[in-house]
Amino acid sequence: MKDNYVTKWIDEMAFETKIDGHSVVMDATEKYGGMDRGPRPKPLLIAALTGCTGMDVASILNKMKVTYDSFEIETETDMTDEHPKTYTKMHLIYKFKGNDLPIKKIEKAVKLSQEKYCGVSALLEKGLELTYAIETIEN
Amino acid sequence: MKDNYVTKWIDEMAFETKIDGHSVVMDATEKYGGMDRGPRPKPLLIAALTGCTGMDVASILNKMKVTYDSFEIETETDMTDEHPKTYTKMHLIYKFKGNDLPIKKIEKAVKLSQEKYCGVSALLEKGLELTYAIETIEN
Repeated sequence: MKDNYVTKWIDEMAFETKIDGHSVVMDATEKYGGMDRGPRPKPLLIAALTGCTGMDVASILNKMKVTYDSFEIETETDMTDEHPKTYTKMHLIYKFKGNDLPIKKIEKAVKLSQEKYCGVSALLEKGLELTYAIETIEN
Repeated sequence: MKDNYVTKWIDEMAFETKIDGHSVVMDATEKYGGMDRGPRPKPLLIAALTGCTGMDVASILNKMKVTYDSFEIETETDMTDEHPKTYTKMHLIYKFKGNDLPIKKIEKAVKLSQEKYCGVSALLEKGLELTYAIETIEN
């Protein structure tokens, strides 16, 4: 399967990528010549990763008829101090809040995402240490 | 260096990640239970990659006093057909339009980004084939 994307320089340090008809604007801070009109590009890797696995898990739990009040994924990262500054580790904490949360089903959904479905996890874990934990909080 | 990020489930298939104070909303299409309120997560990898190297190149060319009328990065991708569906190749085409474009300086700026500064390139090339080309168009 092939896809094409275009990223356009706006001005100074700002760039825009059109994805699925949505505009993603990235910019640097004033310290680095930008105007902070959007996020820095590198942490978009975190959004890509957590959005990818989050949608997998939400979809699988929906099929399992599992409901919850809230669902968050916290990501802790480690990064190199020298150029090229890049992530060396990402640790995801899947946090669910609800009533009578079925822990085994949640574990199964997360495992299916991480080991079978999430293409962003599959790619990033070739270049960094990717780990995860699950936390559930009863109302 | 350590950083923390939180991605929150909104509803259905929609998630939001806060990055540098900016909201990044991701969603699936209706076919997959979403409402297309934002881009799919996986192509955000393309935004992260092209924004990262784009800012490097814009910054280096600015220091070199190189000006241009437009600058785009086109990304051609290859992806696996089977789960986990993920990118196997990204080919970047840096496209500059302007007057008397100094090709050697542009080549140097792109090379510095790809080989020294861009942390997203450094990470992704551990998991896929990353290549690039440069095109210049004189006005």
